Amino acid sequence: MARFFRKRHETQGQVPGSLIFVGTKKVEQTSIRVMDYDAEQLNEFDFTDINQIKDLHASTTCSWVNIYGLHDVDVIKEVGARFNVHPLVLEDVLNTGQRPKLEEFDDFLFLVLKMFRYDQEEEIVHAEQLSIVIGKGFLITFQERKGDVFHAVRERIRKSKGRIRQSGVDYLAYALLDTVVDNYIHVIERLGERIEELDEEVLNDPGKEVLAEITNAKRELNYMAKSIRPAREAIIQLAKLDTDIMSEPMTPYLKDLQDLTTQATEVVEVYREMLTDQMGIYHSSLSNRMNDVMKVLTIFAAIFIPLTFIAGIYGTNFEYFPELHYRYSYFVFWGVIIVVAASMLFFFKRKGWF
Amino acid sequence: MARFFRKRHETQGQVPGSLIFVGTKKVEQTSIRVMDYDAEQLNEFDFTDINQIKDLHASTTCSWVNIYGLHDVDVIKEVGARFNVHPLVLEDVLNTGQRPKLEEFDDFLFLVLKMFRYDQEEEIVHAEQLSIVIGKGFLITFQERKGDVFHAVRERIRKSKGRIRQSGVDYLAYALLDTVVDNYIHVIERLGERIEELDEEVLNDPGKEVLAEITNAKRELNYMAKSIRPAREAIIQLAKLDTDIMSEPMTPYLKDLQDLTTQATEVVEVYREMLTDQMGIYHSSLSNRMNDVMKVLTIFAAIFIPLTFIAGIYGTNFEYFPELHYRYSYFVFWGVIIVVAASMLFFFKRKGWF
Amino acid sequence: MARFFRKRHETQGQVPGSLIFVGTKKVEQTSIRVMDYDAEQLNEFDFTDINQIKDLHASTTCSWVNIYGLHDVDVIKEVGARFNVHPLVLEDVLNTGQRPKLEEFDDFLFLVLKMFRYDQEEEIVHAEQLSIVIGKGFLITFQERKGDVFHAVRERIRKSKGRIRQSGVDYLAYALLDTVVDNYIHVIERLGERIEELDEEVLNDPGKEVLAEITNAKRELNYMAKSIRPAREAIIQLAKLDTDIMSEPMTPYLKDLQDLTTQATEVVEVYREMLTDQMGIYHSSLSNRMNDVMKVLTIFAAIFIPLTFIAGIYGTNFEYFPELHYRYSYFVFWGVIIVVAASMLFFFKRKGWF
Amino acid sequence: MARFFRKRHETQGQVPGSLIFVGTKKVEQTSIRVMDYDAEQLNEFDFTDINQIKDLHASTTCSWVNIYGLHDVDVIKEVGARFNVHPLVLEDVLNTGQRPKLEEFDDFLFLVLKMFRYDQEEEIVHAEQLSIVIGKGFLITFQERKGDVFHAVRERIRKSKGRIRQSGVDYLAYALLDTVVDNYIHVIERLGERIEELDEEVLNDPGKEVLAEITNAKRELNYMAKSIRPAREAIIQLAKLDTDIMSEPMTPYLKDLQDLTTQATEVVEVYREMLTDQMGIYHSSLSNRMNDVMKVLTIFAAIFIPLTFIAGIYGTNFEYFPELHYRYSYFVFWGVIIVVAASMLFFFKRKGWF
Amino acid sequence: MARFFRKRHETQGQVPGSLIFVGTKKVEQTSIRVMDYDAEQLNEFDFTDINQIKDLHASTTCSWVNIYGLHDVDVIKEVGARFNVHPLVLEDVLNTGQRPKLEEFDDFLFLVLKMFRYDQEEEIVHAEQLSIVIGKGFLITFQERKGDVFHAVRERIRKSKGRIRQSGVDYLAYALLDTVVDNYIHVIERLGERIEELDEEVLNDPGKEVLAEITNAKRELNYMAKSIRPAREAIIQLAKLDTDIMSEPMTPYLKDLQDLTTQATEVVEVYREMLTDQMGIYHSSLSNRMNDVMKVLTIFAAIFIPLTFIAGIYGTNFEYFPELHYRYSYFVFWGVIIVVAASMLFFFKRKGWF
Repeated sequence: MARFFRKRHETQGQVPGSLIFVGTKKVEQTSIRVMDYDAEQLNEFDFTDINQIKDLHASTTCSWVNIYGLHDVDVIKEVGARFNVHPLVLEDVLNTGQRPKLEEFDDFLFLVLKMFRYDQEEEIVHAEQLSIVIGKGFLITFQERKGDVFHAVRERIRKSKGRIRQSGVDYLAYALLDTVVDNYIHVIERLGERIEELDEEVLNDPGKEVLAEITNAKRELNYMAKSIRPAREAIIQLAKLDTDIMSEPMTPYLKDLQDLTTQATEVVEVYREMLTDQMGIYHSSLSNRMNDVMKVLTIFAAIFIPLTFIAGIYGTNFEYFPELHYRYSYFVFWGVIIVVAASMLFFFKRKGWF
Repeated sequence: MARFFRKRHETQGQVPGSLIFVGTKKVEQTSIRVMDYDAEQLNEFDFTDINQIKDLHASTTCSWVNIYGLHDVDVIKEVGARFNVHPLVLEDVLNTGQRPKLEEFDDFLFLVLKMFRYDQEEEIVHAEQLSIVIGKGFLITFQERKGDVFHAVRERIRKSKGRIRQSGVDYLAYALLDTVVDNYIHVIERLGERIEELDEEVLNDPGKEVLAEITNAKRELNYMAKSIRPAREAIIQLAKLDTDIMSEPMTPYLKDLQDLTTQATEVVEVYREMLTDQMGIYHSSLSNRMNDVMKVLTIFAAIFIPLTFIAGIYGTNFEYFPELHYRYSYFVFWGVIIVVAASMLFFFKRKGWF
Repeated sequence: MARFFRKRHETQGQVPGSLIFVGTKKVEQTSIRVMDYDAEQLNEFDFTDINQIKDLHASTTCSWVNIYGLHDVDVIKEVGARFNVHPLVLEDVLNTGQRPKLEEFDDFLFLVLKMFRYDQEEEIVHAEQLSIVIGKGFLITFQERKGDVFHAVRERIRKSKGRIRQSGVDYLAYALLDTVVDNYIHVIERLGERIEELDEEVLNDPGKEVLAEITNAKRELNYMAKSIRPAREAIIQLAKLDTDIMSEPMTPYLKDLQDLTTQATEVVEVYREMLTDQMGIYHSSLSNRMNDVMKVLTIFAAIFIPLTFIAGIYGTNFEYFPELHYRYSYFVFWGVIIVVAASMLFFFKRKGWF
Repeated sequence: MARFFRKRHETQGQVPGSLIFVGTKKVEQTSIRVMDYDAEQLNEFDFTDINQIKDLHASTTCSWVNIYGLHDVDVIKEVGARFNVHPLVLEDVLNTGQRPKLEEFDDFLFLVLKMFRYDQEEEIVHAEQLSIVIGKGFLITFQERKGDVFHAVRERIRKSKGRIRQSGVDYLAYALLDTVVDNYIHVIERLGERIEELDEEVLNDPGKEVLAEITNAKRELNYMAKSIRPAREAIIQLAKLDTDIMSEPMTPYLKDLQDLTTQATEVVEVYREMLTDQMGIYHSSLSNRMNDVMKVLTIFAAIFIPLTFIAGIYGTNFEYFPELHYRYSYFVFWGVIIVVAASMLFFFKRKGWF
Repeated sequence: MARFFRKRHETQGQVPGSLIFVGTKKVEQTSIRVMDYDAEQLNEFDFTDINQIKDLHASTTCSWVNIYGLHDVDVIKEVGARFNVHPLVLEDVLNTGQRPKLEEFDDFLFLVLKMFRYDQEEEIVHAEQLSIVIGKGFLITFQERKGDVFHAVRERIRKSKGRIRQSGVDYLAYALLDTVVDNYIHVIERLGERIEELDEEVLNDPGKEVLAEITNAKRELNYMAKSIRPAREAIIQLAKLDTDIMSEPMTPYLKDLQDLTTQATEVVEVYREMLTDQMGIYHSSLSNRMNDVMKVLTIFAAIFIPLTFIAGIYGTNFEYFPELHYRYSYFVFWGVIIVVAASMLFFFKRKGWF
């Protein structure tokens, strides 16, 4: 299946707005974790049934509803209904081939992003779609699989570290985005280390595996760039947004996020150029090698082919062949051979071939 | 004939605005299908004669006039006249070499797009021009051939699925555009799968066919990009348009279309870069191969040419040639040959040539 | 002489505004053709003497003054004086190395464009400068040579086809520009056909001539692009101009021209990229060929060099050489040779070298 | 460790705003140097303890607090507190992987830049982060190591050279930035000299070391470009800023800085292109060399292989072999050999192979 | 010394604004030529001492002060003082490594440009810095060496040709700029002729000198582009400037200049692309050559190596070797050899190798 581009509608011609899960089922069961908190109190639940959720929408606390697994369309629909989320948004949530984006609705913001996981073994970057709905007093995250990526944020809420419990869902949104961008930087860094190491190999040992590694790294970078670039746009747009969902004191924090994604895209660009250069260097290294091989061949051929010819002459069976009968011919023969070989070697030495 | 650029005027110097069909006749007979509907009723006709059309223009229902085959200029002219369509628009409709675009007139919008069909056999993308005139209460589509591409939309109208029957021609236009963009994504995806597969082949089996495939895929992508990029511009322009033909509730739908075409152009770009990289990798793989061939040659030559020379020496007919008469010369000879061959092999082994 | 850039001032340090013809004299004698028309009447003259022109400037009819040949500076000056054309404009008219541009003056518009002629024989594009002065009630065109490029426009005036006789000089200007852009499209199409054919040759028959053709096509495209790009800018500028010389009903026509030049520049870009790709494919095809040559060499060398060595051994003249005296040695010798040759062939076959 | 991209948070999931030093400890002990001056007086201190600093913030003099070494978080925190610097700023100061930027706060400007040091030995560019906080009447610089880079500025303050003592912290800021940009230009110049020298080597002596040097120079340029480009943006932004921290008479000075950084980025671009070209030339030079090697091989092979064959013929042991018995066969044999060799040489000479 | 980038401050840490000559002393003595003119009168002086200059600043005539040689800082300072030129401007005048630019001050405009001189012998472009200060009633030019580049302008003033004597310093400035731009075009044209000639050589005779020439031409073009691009920006800026130093009637003249520099930058770009293409063609031509060399080698090897083997067989000394004793063996041997050789030749002929 094409990895860089996934089909949107499983069935072409579907009514737009109809809810269909498009993607790979990555967990067995859709599960829901809720954290409902304000400065004083914290309630943390874990359900598999949407009906267990109390009336979170109306409460004055911050409610973070975290949904893992998107294949259970009914659950998504039900959650959507309880929080008055637009059907087109739910369609986007269910379609894991979304381009990262920010959309502003009357009552909430909708943000789609990608999270990466670098599989060291296979040297492949896996992407997972993260959708965030930020409303007044609630924040819903939709993830494809259960992961511990937001564990640290949860801990901060539990232990009331920093200002997270004193702040609203906008700060929570920032904390989550910060985690996502950190994740980008982490994965780029991992790939980058590998790419910087290639610099050496490409010059000194231009084997086929190096070529495969360059190709692979480039593909993974392209794969990430495809998601990071629009994520950056979405975050810049978020910082500019004139909405009361994001309170004013968030501005420096969002600016900080923006700087980080800018840096991420720039570094991806730097690494891509580096790989392109490495391809060129690889090619030149190969040519260098070929030159060396050719020189070895030429030296051997140029020395021994003439000598073989000389030996061939004295192997002929001409009846009249005066030299063959002289006593010292044999020694002269050896002398000629040594002189020819030596002058050849001298010739190639002077050309700097070895 | 140049596929990337077709001549506009069959006869240079024609009066601009004169209606001449420019293209290839793809159906035998121009035919017209009309769907006239509102929330309560639906009338569906199928003509080949324009005069059978009742006064659709004046009715309060949504009238979708779908024309297949553009070579019958009189039919086009007649339809144009009945719906007050500007002659320059009809000229554009008839000229199948149009660049996709949106044009706003006083009473209607005019949209030209391309639809693709991927011929798996020949690995070629065929393009067909689709012109849409969106007026108040009517929508005319002009297609080059009869196809089932809008079949699903028709079914939705017939079965009154979704909000299509409740909505006006603007929603119908959206539904059609959505189908077109889906078609883009579908074809890109097909090409993309093939391109992603090439990654492997290019590294491991850089034959001539792979080169031909890369070339082919690049040409087809360029061919599509040429139409998708301006289509995207046209759709963005449509979303920005301040016209009462597109009603306000359409905005999120058009936004969605815009996202999809943006994604389509980005992915086309990604695939084009991928192909360019593959060209480079292909070339390096070839050099790698050449290196291997050269190594084989050099190893054979460097081992056997000196040996042949040694044999040649003892084939000479010098009268005085002491070694020839010693009893163990023959064994020494074999010994020398084995030593030379072995040290050569050792030398190349250490160089890592095999 | 540099074809891509011609010197402006034949004599450096000339007073700017002094009228000097810069270019190659392409016709023997400067000649002038005038068409003076309105809806009712048409007068068509042909002079070689400027003084014969009556007071065209003041008349209410449309006067199209078409001048062929620019080397006769006095004629140009005289025409300029009669129509109150600014000296800097005349300087530009006379200098055939102008960059296409539009300039707005108080009483007239000045437009410089290039027209192309594709010489099939030499596969070269020739450019000719066309300057147009559009005033109120008159339009002057300056051409380097007498050609039949505007013949069709003239016929339309004569036969009063279309709206040309009913319209003013703005429509005439449009008709001429439309002819020029048609000319661009025609020449690009011709080059494009050749370029698309090269795709095949480059893969299958990468001879030196193909390289020469690619180089040639690229040079000609660059040559045209250099003039088409600024021509497009000039036409876009013309469409935006707020002047009463171009009447309002011209807007859709100018929009159409703009679309066409946009398409022309895009297609030139597509073809240029195609040629760049072809260069890469050509290079890879060459490497492929080289690989094939090397394989042939290596197969021959690797089979026969060892065999020659074996034969060489039995050609030595050792006195004690037991095998030589055995009765079946000869057959064993042939057996060894066949086995060696066969296993070599098998080895290369398995490597897929033939 | 990836040199092009350093991890931001040592521990993912840290509370944003918590102060953690991210970088390499480059000095043993954090030290602080203060210069407190106005037109009449100058006080210069050197501490290692922040508590020794008197109430610099409130004074009317210009106070330049220069801090070397960032690993002592407490000192940084204390300084931050005394001058009311925002915690997010301190976080940025401590994180040495910042992208250069300018941030405007209510009471101060915050500027992050990189300074370079070119290690001639290892041909590597080392970067050090410089953070500047410009407030009203004070300026704090944070450096990673103790260096003499600002020595000249200090001397100018001490000796009251130029207008530095008569001016405020804005002029001091300019003087420091000027030093930084001078530093950029100096390092680029050093790299540039080396790059311009490579032009020659690449054509005449395309060894592996040249390839390594090109690669190296490109990497270092990329490394610098990554910091110079955003530095330029920051300085342009500074010149545009509408703040009373930078007084109006500074404008031409800031303009000058802007010109210099523009020039620096342009020259970096020129050198990068030059290196890309050199890669191409290197590759062509290599091919040239390979051609030469092949020609030597071919000449030797083409001359001696046929000759060896001729000698081989007369080495056969056919019983009936008339030529062997003629008296002059031997001389004819030599004649043939000389003629073949000579015509070969003539053939290759005419082909221009030597 | 790096040619593409010259150090600004000879001594880092100098007080900005201090006047130090940075460059190469190109004339022995700084000299000053003054032309003081209006429509009626003209005074022309030639000094080496600044004190001889009368009170030109206050006069109502146009005063053109032309200074050759910048190493005499005192003279520059004195001139600056007399015309109230800002010290930062003088610093720029003295620093010959300036980027071309326009700066607007209250009383004057300051323009820095480069002039080129093409050294045909060494195929190198030399640049000289030209600084122009345009005030009310005076214009000062600073040149590095005494040259006759403005000779024609001087003649026009002397002979009162054109409108130069009737116009103010703005027209004089235009006349000088026109000369400079003419100079650009002249040098580009010279380089361009050489580049267009290379097209042929690169295809047919891809020797090492061609590579050197391409490299050289590219470097010189880059060198010029570095100065022409900002010069173009400066001239565009000048045309847009809202200042009473440039009177309104100058607009069309400045527009003309702008067109010319635009054309110059475009042509430089065209030539740079052409050179890049030539590099590619060169490389392919080389590969073509290598292919030819390899084919020669392979043909010789593939024909004679098997033949030598056949001869080798009959050179063996097997006691039992029936063929050797047949009478016609010798002729059969020759027959086999001829058949093998002929079929080889046929094989290679059919492959199209010769």
